[in-house]
Formats: sequence, structure tokens, C-alpha cells
Amino acid sequence: MRLLLANANTTDAVTETCARAARAAAAPDTEIVAVTPRFGPRVISSRAENAIAAHGLLDCLAEHHPGCDAAILAVSYDTALAAARQLLPIPVIGMTEAACLAACLAGGRFGLVTFSSPDLYREVIAGHGLAGRLSGIALIDATPYDAASDPESVAAKVAEAAAGLAREGADSVLLGGAALAGMAGLIQERVPVPLIDGIAAAVVFAEGIVRLRLPKPRLGGYAAPANRHAVGLGEALSALLRRG
Amino acid sequence: MRLLLANANTTDAVTETCARAARAAAAPDTEIVAVTPRFGPRVISSRAENAIAAHGLLDCLAEHHPGCDAAILAVSYDTALAAARQLLPIPVIGMTEAACLAACLAGGRFGLVTFSSPDLYREVIAGHGLAGRLSGIALIDATPYDAASDPESVAAKVAEAAAGLAREGADSVLLGGAALAGMAGLIQERVPVPLIDGIAAAVVFAEGIVRLRLPKPRLGGYAAPANRHAVGLGEALSALLRRG
Amino acid sequence: MRLLLANANTTDAVTETCARAARAAAAPDTEIVAVTPRFGPRVISSRAENAIAAHGLLDCLAEHHPGCDAAILAVSYDTALAAARQLLPIPVIGMTEAACLAACLAGGRFGLVTFSSPDLYREVIAGHGLAGRLSGIALIDATPYDAASDPESVAAKVAEAAAGLAREGADSVLLGGAALAGMAGLIQERVPVPLIDGIAAAVVFAEGIVRLRLPKPRLGGYAAPANRHAVGLGEALSALLRRG
Amino acid sequence: MRLLLANANTTDAVTETCARAARAAAAPDTEIVAVTPRFGPRVISSRAENAIAAHGLLDCLAEHHPGCDAAILAVSYDTALAAARQLLPIPVIGMTEAACLAACLAGGRFGLVTFSSPDLYREVIAGHGLAGRLSGIALIDATPYDAASDPESVAAKVAEAAAGLAREGADSVLLGGAALAGMAGLIQERVPVPLIDGIAAAVVFAEGIVRLRLPKPRLGGYAAPANRHAVGLGEALSALLRRG
Amino acid sequence: MRLLLANANTTDAVTETCARAARAAAAPDTEIVAVTPRFGPRVISSRAENAIAAHGLLDCLAEHHPGCDAAILAVSYDTALAAARQLLPIPVIGMTEAACLAACLAGGRFGLVTFSSPDLYREVIAGHGLAGRLSGIALIDATPYDAASDPESVAAKVAEAAAGLAREGADSVLLGGAALAGMAGLIQERVPVPLIDGIAAAVVFAEGIVRLRLPKPRLGGYAAPANRHAVGLGEALSALLRRG
Amino acid sequence: MRLLLANANTTDAVTETCARAARAAAAPDTEIVAVTPRFGPRVISSRAENAIAAHGLLDCLAEHHPGCDAAILAVSYDTALAAARQLLPIPVIGMTEAACLAACLAGGRFGLVTFSSPDLYREVIAGHGLAGRLSGIALIDATPYDAASDPESVAAKVAEAAAGLAREGADSVLLGGAALAGMAGLIQERVPVPLIDGIAAAVVFAEGIVRLRLPKPRLGGYAAPANRHAVGLGEALSALLRRG
Repeated sequence: MRLLLANANTTDAVTETCARAARAAAAPDTEIVAVTPRFGPRVISSRAENAIAAHGLLDCLAEHHPGCDAAILAVSYDTALAAARQLLPIPVIGMTEAACLAACLAGGRFGLVTFSSPDLYREVIAGHGLAGRLSGIALIDATPYDAASDPESVAAKVAEAAAGLAREGADSVLLGGAALAGMAGLIQERVPVPLIDGIAAAVVFAEGIVRLRLPKPRLGGYAAPANRHAVGLGEALSALLRRG
Repeated sequence: MRLLLANANTTDAVTETCARAARAAAAPDTEIVAVTPRFGPRVISSRAENAIAAHGLLDCLAEHHPGCDAAILAVSYDTALAAARQLLPIPVIGMTEAACLAACLAGGRFGLVTFSSPDLYREVIAGHGLAGRLSGIALIDATPYDAASDPESVAAKVAEAAAGLAREGADSVLLGGAALAGMAGLIQERVPVPLIDGIAAAVVFAEGIVRLRLPKPRLGGYAAPANRHAVGLGEALSALLRRG
Repeated sequence: MRLLLANANTTDAVTETCARAARAAAAPDTEIVAVTPRFGPRVISSRAENAIAAHGLLDCLAEHHPGCDAAILAVSYDTALAAARQLLPIPVIGMTEAACLAACLAGGRFGLVTFSSPDLYREVIAGHGLAGRLSGIALIDATPYDAASDPESVAAKVAEAAAGLAREGADSVLLGGAALAGMAGLIQERVPVPLIDGIAAAVVFAEGIVRLRLPKPRLGGYAAPANRHAVGLGEALSALLRRG
Repeated sequence: MRLLLANANTTDAVTETCARAARAAAAPDTEIVAVTPRFGPRVISSRAENAIAAHGLLDCLAEHHPGCDAAILAVSYDTALAAARQLLPIPVIGMTEAACLAACLAGGRFGLVTFSSPDLYREVIAGHGLAGRLSGIALIDATPYDAASDPESVAAKVAEAAAGLAREGADSVLLGGAALAGMAGLIQERVPVPLIDGIAAAVVFAEGIVRLRLPKPRLGGYAAPANRHAVGLGEALSALLRRG
Repeated sequence: MRLLLANANTTDAVTETCARAARAAAAPDTEIVAVTPRFGPRVISSRAENAIAAHGLLDCLAEHHPGCDAAILAVSYDTALAAARQLLPIPVIGMTEAACLAACLAGGRFGLVTFSSPDLYREVIAGHGLAGRLSGIALIDATPYDAASDPESVAAKVAEAAAGLAREGADSVLLGGAALAGMAGLIQERVPVPLIDGIAAAVVFAEGIVRLRLPKPRLGGYAAPANRHAVGLGEALSALLRRG
Repeated sequence: MRLLLANANTTDAVTETCARAARAAAAPDTEIVAVTPRFGPRVISSRAENAIAAHGLLDCLAEHHPGCDAAILAVSYDTALAAARQLLPIPVIGMTEAACLAACLAGGRFGLVTFSSPDLYREVIAGHGLAGRLSGIALIDATPYDAASDPESVAAKVAEAAAGLAREGADSVLLGGAALAGMAGLIQERVPVPLIDGIAAAVVFAEGIVRLRLPKPRLGGYAAPANRHAVGLGEALSALLRRG
């Protein structure tokens, strides 16, 4: 099976971090194809950048999806998820969406640890219809860059924040942010409830959903657009809108 | 991998129908261990029977889970799901829960086709926090028994009802009821949106969640009970409550 | 009037505590018939035990309800309430349900003081559709056993917690847990808003609802099941499922 | 026990209809004191009249509550309920509020049959936090006046509408409107789920809540106002605001 | 354009404070006609007074609206807003309603700073369907009278509370209470998010809505009542109910 | 005052239709500056196109906003609204957002008449937190192109659909879709509740909000991004992200 792992940030190092986490979680016969958009924000950290990144991500997915069985959006805001899902002929899964669903399967309510933008996460989770299962969000006093430069210190802060959420009622805790991909395993033993890594969850769910062979809808808001015309878009994206 | 597939009805034929659907969906190296409770309702079709069946199901899970990697509840009301999840040391997944999550990954809102008890399904879905993603429920004029005796006719009714839900806004449609396990594939081409089989979804999600190796919570409402004492319960269930 | 007061824990002492509170609240001509299940958890304190206890409670209600005008479930999780309501030909009221409704009549929002399991209470209250009227839950640092062994100290903690909830916006406060039955009167004067005892509320509402003479539904999810077959259940419960 | 039954319409005939229904539901030793405001709309049938009627009703309650154990608002919009509850030293119950709570005790979801103003009823029920338990509202093609002049015909329409709501999922049905007080008993046998009369429900709940002897809150939004000054109000109402 | 600014408190000084704020916000060719009810509470600070004040306010609007293009309710509980909107032939806007809508246009979620009665504000905002956009309410330790006698000190408290709400997630902050009308401008620079003055917002929205020339509904719950009869009301109000 | 009216479709004719409606609604001294993006979908009619259009719209706003007092998004899906609001130093208003708020001021619940994509509209309205005020959506059997080629016929269909929504409980009706801009006035007399034109509403609200002079937030999710770097974006947009 081939899974397309598309970053929405235009920073190759983040793509690589996510790809490593994905490969660690994937089944032996699953190939991870990791790609970075041609244009867009370096690192999304605001609503404005998130909206701009959607275009770059869709452009990237349009170019690289042929030959893949499903696509994973390696961006913690699930950027352009519904749009990509409608546009592509293959299943598409967001990393925070996947983390939420894994948390649902773990039971009860989930917390989230991240760097910043709690409102944006809240809106993403509410958009999935799961606001009622979110117990709380804890911010750590660090940046995504610190996660690369001083991983020990960030790991300690994440573990402490996650344990705090657990004491206040979280039955599991999501790590939000591509920069934290792969960290859950390192600190799990310091936290009394499951830590959930969005990339790993997205990989196993993508493998599962591919095996269910659900057909592409032919009706409704997720049926592929067709005969749509646009100006100034990349070739692959234009073609996808035109042909459906 | 070994998955325990536990029915909550005490009717072996239903267990067998579900086991067939599970084996068809499972990976080659996944073994399905199908079990039926020692006591409880023949076929659950009311709140009262559902409450009684919870005990029989937990008794059955307590006895048969050793040696299994995860458990699937093969009953469309997700009977005793939270209780089983708390009680067992392995992941537990409900078939309607799994169907809902697969529908979430398919995108948008989902409908449900079933035989009866729409309120019970509504409560189950609301209990998962997903009421906002349910577009509607359609009842077919048939019984679970008809699904065995006259599958063609029931299949036609299900297909028509599912197509109707799609026209009214469902982006995917769940088939509710263990008696419909395995039917989705037969009628998919007559319906313009994905049909989702709870047993198949539960199998691939169970395989995925096992691979995530989430630890059992040590805190909160899903940590295993321990030192709990009871009267008149089966041996395996008593032992599980006592030892944690 | 005869009211059946059925415990869901298999501990006679808890049944007796509740029966005393019920008799103190009942009208002079109301007889309280207090019963304890034949099997099930000694003291419910987890989702798993709560699910198991449902069967024991329904078995107990099936045996003892003949000759009674209504049934009160003397268990603070309203265990098996909807199932019992559907199954029995007489009205059934849960003690936490009754406390919530009394709080509604007192006006505004209510808080809850209890020992543990806030999530379970939250789910029970949400199940009644009243999540919007819950202002908060306060846990006291004590166990149900302490309430029997050191009632003064527990009473002081409950009073303090209740007063705190009132300062944060509760217009009344529920005491959750059968072990607190009867305590409200002792500490009311230390708390600036009404304290509500679930057993007392259930008794007066049961008396009232009996006098309304509402008929048993003949349609829908609360009509009695009939012609339902089961394996390995007690005689009275089997008969009730069979005959409707 | 003495229960004050206060109409919010200034039409004595409606007060009398409600008083008859209240006396039929009351315990033998309960006295019903029925009163009509000195000023206000003849028959409330709009938001504007409802807002005006609140003043007349509070004026009326201020004058007549001394010597009574609780007050019932005999107006189906639960006019001024929270205000009266805050103002008076005795419990206050609205007739639609009481009907909703009786329906909750009957189980599941309730429908409502009435003459007009479905939005106003929806707002009243949502104000009680119970929107989630309302299954639907059915309007009959008749006026409150018809209920007096041609009761047989109106009864037939109400029965038909209630049966329709039951078929669509209502587990019980409320009769909305003071003009339908007392009708439930006449048509119950034609409807397969319980019909609930707000006046009767209010009477039995008032009797019950009085027996719980809940104290008046000394804190929060339902504590009595005191030292409040006003211009041009009736003497009893002015005094109550001043003295608390 | 002439805008009627109607207070619901019977205190001329409050009317004047609001009128000043309104004139400061109004376009050069907008005339503000400020009026005070003939009867009702001096200063509304409880549910009871709010219900009584509705009548006085409607009486006042009925008398003074002829010749005006729209009406603004200068009372922070949006007293009688729906009733006035139904009753009058011109648009009616509540000051807190207007503040909420301005906050929506500013984006994200809003906080509220006020003196007391947080529950009442919560209910008002929920009644507008905007509970989901309220981030929190902060109370200051002062009274409306202090705002007149010691404005500096109250301003400092309001600024501090508003800044606190901003740090906890408010994207803008409403000042609740007619006594704070006009204060926003004085302290805006001390607060990092927009402060919203209900009177100013109501004025500019009233000017805008008048220019949209929306017709009075002829159907539904906001169509004017007609042929309605009442007892003991003021002449203008009686006439309006009678004529529609 | 200068208002920037930015289309998100790259079709000049649609921009012109909206500009005409805007100029008809604007105050005499308000200048409407109408602009069309350099790239993006011709006419947005799917989630995928909507996500792509966000970039083109932000690029267009970044270039053209200098010298303007506020911006109006002339696209009925309120494309990129939160992003634009965060990015720009001036107020930004969406046309459907404005229509919803005008409907709130008209009172009660609103319906929506449009061509297609009801789910997208539902999500937009829910995103504004106003799902509870939406009474329903009616689709007409026509396309946006028909509105230009056969306006009489489309107007008749819109009027009929709007009147139907009013009969089913809408207190006002929004016309959804830039292609219907300006139509409300033509058919208002055939519909018994107010018809609301999003462009007109956006213009008067923009004029009002500019006069409130709310400062740009310096904190939280709507404070301007700064020091953000991106690849391959247009010059004005890049500069805005960099400088804040």
C-alpha cells in the first residue's frame, strides 16, 4: 500500500519529522510518500497562514496523489481536509482528526497539549463534531523550534501538561503539532493515560480505511467536482477540477 | 493478531453471521475468535433486553479475552461498551461506534438504515458525541429474521432506503443491526454514497488500534476497577473485578 | 400507596439507609418496600459494576414490583432507569433524576457534591437532557464508608463543598450517592441554597406521579416488551419479558 | 395545604377552568385559591401580551400569596416564572414546566399539542433546558374559544394530533394551553402514549415540593430582592421589593 | 433619522448617561429622542424587576414611537426586546444584543465585564443564540452608583477585568450595564482587544437597519398583534394592541 | 468612507452585480471599490474551490485594502473571513455573516433560499455560532446563470421558496448567493417576512462598524500575524505576513 503524506507547511524538515513518525507506525508493506507544497507559509501559526496553505496543499495533493491509495494531511490544523476529501479520488485523513478518533476508541474524553492557538484547535475539533469529547487544552511554554533544538526539555513540559490534563478528567491526551510527531512514545510512561500521536493514528486508520474499499461518493458535498474552471492555478489542480 | 468478537445476543446464528463478515474484512494474519454469552436475551430489541444483555456480554468477555489482542462487540447497540472498555486490559470497539468513525473519515454527515428502535440508535450515537454528524435514520419494513429468510427482498429495501438518505443529505450510510452484517458489499453499487458495515469497520480499526499500542489508563474512569466485590457473578468476571 | 425502593448495590446496609430517608419523606399513608438484588456488585463505583448491576436490579424489580404503585431506584447512577421504565407496568423514578427535577423546580442551575466518578454523574445528567442546568460538580475527600463511620466530618466537608458551589453560581445543590441519603437536613443551615436529597425527592415525585394515573404507553420505546425470549435469567424477569 | 393558582390572563372563565382541573388533581386536604390579575391582556396570544402580563401576574402573586404554601402559574407560557420564583418566599411552579417534568418522569421524549405560537412554546421549553427532550409540536385547527364552545370537536382534533406525534416518536404528549386543562382524561384512551395535563402535574408537584421543605435561597439569582425601589407599582408588589 | 432611546429603568440620570453615549455615536443627521418609563423599578437588578420593567418599557415605547424610525432599548438586559419588536411597526434593537453582534463582526469570541447578575447576562446572550461565542464573564467589585461617583476607580477595575478576559481568550470585550455607557473609549488603550459599548453599537446598527428598509412581517411571531384586548393598561399601549 | 468589495470568484460579471447592489445600499458619501482576484475558481461551487479561492481572495485583499476603511467579502460562503479579519488592519465583513446578523435584528429565526450546497451554508452559519437561529434552507430548481439569463423566472421561484419558509416558521429569509444580490427588493411584496440581501446588509454594517472605530486586537487569534515567512506568494500578501 502507498500512502501519500502531504505537509501543508513548506518546511522540508517538518515533512521529514512526520515521515519518520509515519514510517515507524506503518505496516511493513506500507510505503510512505512524503511531499511538501511548492508554495505557502513556512510554518503555519495563524488563521491567515492556514487559509493560504490550503491552496498549496491542494496543489501538492493534486500533483502527487496518482498511484497512492490514500492521503494523510501532515498538519495539525487538518488544513483543507474537507476540500481535499472532496477533490481526490482516494481517502484523505487529517492527523488531528485521526488523533481524535483514536482517542474516541480509547474511551471517554480527551485533552490536547500543544504550543499555541488553542482557539484554532477548538474550531478544528468542533468542526469534526467532537467538541463534546474535548476535556481541555493545555499550552506549554515552548515553541515548535524548541522541540527540535531542546527535545528533552520540551518532552518534560509535554509530559507534565499531559499528566495535568489527566488529573482534570482527560481519559487520553493528544499531542498537537507536527513538531511533536513521534514524541508520545518517549514520554508515555510518565503519563497515566494514553498519549496519542496524530501521524501514527492517521497511518493505521488510513491502512484500515483503504481495506474497507469505500467507493467515492457520486452524490452530495463529497462527490468530486467536475467541469470546474479556474484561473492561474497549477496544472495538476486545474486538471482535477476540470475532469472531476 | 487475535480479535475476540463477542455477540451480546445469545443466538449463535447471529454470532456466525458477524464472524463471517469479520473474517472477510480481517487481514490474512488476523484470527477472529467468535463467542456467544452464556445467558441473556436471544435477540436484543428493547432497552430492557439491552440492559440485561450487558451483564451476559461482560461475563463472556471476562472469560474469553485472555490471549486476545482486542475485542469487538458484535451488537449494534454498542451494548456495555464503556463498561467493557474499563474492565478489560485490551482495547474494545463497538460495531456501531466503528461504523460512525468510518463514516466520519468518509466525510460529512451519515445516515443510518435499520429495522426498528431509532431512538435507541440516536441515543447510542449521541453517547459517542456524534449526534451532530447524523443526518437521519430510515427504517425498513422488515425484521432481522427476514434478512436471513429473504435476503434479496431485504437488500432491495435497504438499498432504496440508503439512496433516499443520500438524496436528503447523507454523505455515507451505516447499516445498523448485526443481521445486516456483510450486506453492504452486495448493494453498494445501487447507492451513490459509501455504505458502511460496522463489523468490517470494527475489524480494521481494531487491527489499527492494536498496532498503536496505547497503554491501559492508570487513572480516571477507564482505569481498570480493582478490589471490587460482588455476589453471584460468574467466576471470570468476579476475578476480573477483584484483581483489576 | 406502596412504593418499591430497590437498591442496585447488594449491600443491605445501604438499602436500609435509603429506606430510612424514604420513610422520613413519605406521606403517612405511603408504605416503603425496600429490597436488595440477589446478585451484583456490593457497592457500585465504576462503569463496569454499574452495567453489571443493571441486570441484578431488573431481576429484583421483576420479582418485587407486583402489588406496588411505583418503583424508586435507590442508586445514584440511576442504573437501568430507562430499561426498568420500559419493563415494568408501574412508574419508575431514579433518585438522581428526581433530585435534578426538584432542582429545576427550585430554579436556575444546580451543583452536585459527591465522592468520586464525576464523569459518570455528568453522563447521567446529560442522559436526562439536563446538562445545561448543571453548574458544576465538587468532590469531597472522603469515601461512602466514612459517611457511616464519621458522619460529622463528612457532613462538614459536604457543607463546605456545597457552599462553594453556591458561591460559584449553583442555585441549589444535589447530594450524590446513596450514602449521603438523609444528610441534607442536617447541614442545610450551613449552606445558602437548597440542598436536595434524591431519595426524598424521588418519594414525593413518585407519590405525585402515581396520583396523575398516566397510562403505560402502548407504542414506542417505553411500551412493554412482549414475546421476548432469553436464556439463563431468573424466573420473574423471564416471565415479564415473555408476557409483556 | 393551600396552593395559590394564579392566572396571567385577565379572563375569569379561564381561571375557573384551571381551578376545576386543579381541584380534580389535588389531594383531599389541599385547598386551591384561584386568582386573576387586576390588569393585563384578556387572553395572552403573543410575545407582547406575554411580556405585559408578567407585571399583572407578579402584582397578583404579591397580593395573594400570604397564607399559601406554594404558587402555581396557570398560564401555558410559564409567564414570569423565574421572576415570581425569585420574588416570593414560597415555591412557584409553572404549568408547562410541570408538564415537561412529568413527561421526563414518563420517559423518553415528549410532544406538544396546542393551538398556535409554536415558537413561543419552543422558547419556553428551551428556557427550561429541555429542548433536547421535545420530539415535536403539532398545531390543531381550532381556537381556545372553540375548546369551550365545541369541546367534542376540539377533543377529537387533539386526540388525532397527539396520536400522530406518538407515531413520530413522542413517548408522551403535553396539552398546551390553559383552555385544554382537564381534557387529557377525556381522550386518553384514544392515544397510545400518556397525555399530560400541566395543571394536574403542577398540583401534584407543588404538593411534593412543599413537603420537601426546601429553604428559600439566601444567595444567587433566586434569593429574594430587597431594598429595591420602584415607581407606580401596586402596594403589595412595592412592599415585597422593598422588604425582600 | 430619529431614533427613540427608551430606558427601562425609571431613573432619569441613567437615561441621560445613555443619551449622551448615543449622541456621541450617532451620525450628524440622527436625532436621539430619550425617554424614561412612567412606572417601574428605579434600577433593574433582579429577574423580578426585569419582568416588571417590561411593562413600563412597552408602555413607554407605545407612547413615544410615533415619528421615530427605530427604537433602541437602553437597558443591558435587553428587557422586553422580542415583545417590543413584535409590537412596534419600527425596528427595535437591544443594547446588549447590538454589543454581541458588533463583537461577532470583530471576530472570534467575546467576554463581558459587568457589576453583577452573570446568570441573567448568560441567559440574555443564550436567548440571542450566541452562547457559543461568549468566552466568559468577569464581575468587578463595584456598583453602578460607583460608576457615577468614582468613575476613575471603576474605570481601572473595568480595564483590568477586560484585560484579564483577553488573556483568557476573549477576542473582544463587552461592557455590560447602562452605567458603563461611554466608558469604553476612556480605557480602550489599556486593553489589548476591542471594548464594545452597547449603546454606540445599537445606534450604528439602528441607523444601518433603518436604511435596509426591511418590511414589518405580516406572518409569524413578529407580525404585529391586532384585535387584542386588555384591562387596565395605558392608552397608547391598549390602542396598539387593539389596532395592530 | 471607502469600502473595499472583494469577490472571491474570478468572474468580473459577478463582481459587477455585487458592486451594483452595494452602491444601491451605500450612503451617499460611501465609495465602493470593487475588485476581483488575480487567480482562483471562476465560480465557487464546491468545498474544494472554496478552499482554493481563499488564497486568491487574501492575495487580492492584501493588494487592494490600503486606503480603504473596511472590506466586504462578496462571496456567499464567507470565504476566508476569519483569515482576512486577522490579516488586515481594517474591519472585514462577510456577506452571509452580515445577512445573518441583519436577520437576528429582525427577530426570531431565519430561513435561507439558495441554488445548491445546503451543507456548506449550514457549516458557514454554524461557524458563526448561529445554527440555532436557522429555521431551514430551501433550494430552488435553477442555477446562478439562470439568475442572469432569466431573472423573472428565478425571481418567481425564489419568492415561492421564501414564502414557503415563512409558513414553516422563518421570521425572515436570506437570499444566498452573489447571483441573487439585488433581487430582494424586486420580490419583497410577494413574501410575508423580510427578505435580506447579504451585500446590502454588509454595506450598512460596514459603515456602522467603521464609525465605532474598534481598534485592531493586539492579542489573541485576531491580532495581525507578523514575522511570518512564506514561499511563492504574491508581493503584497508576503509583505503583510512579514510586517504584520
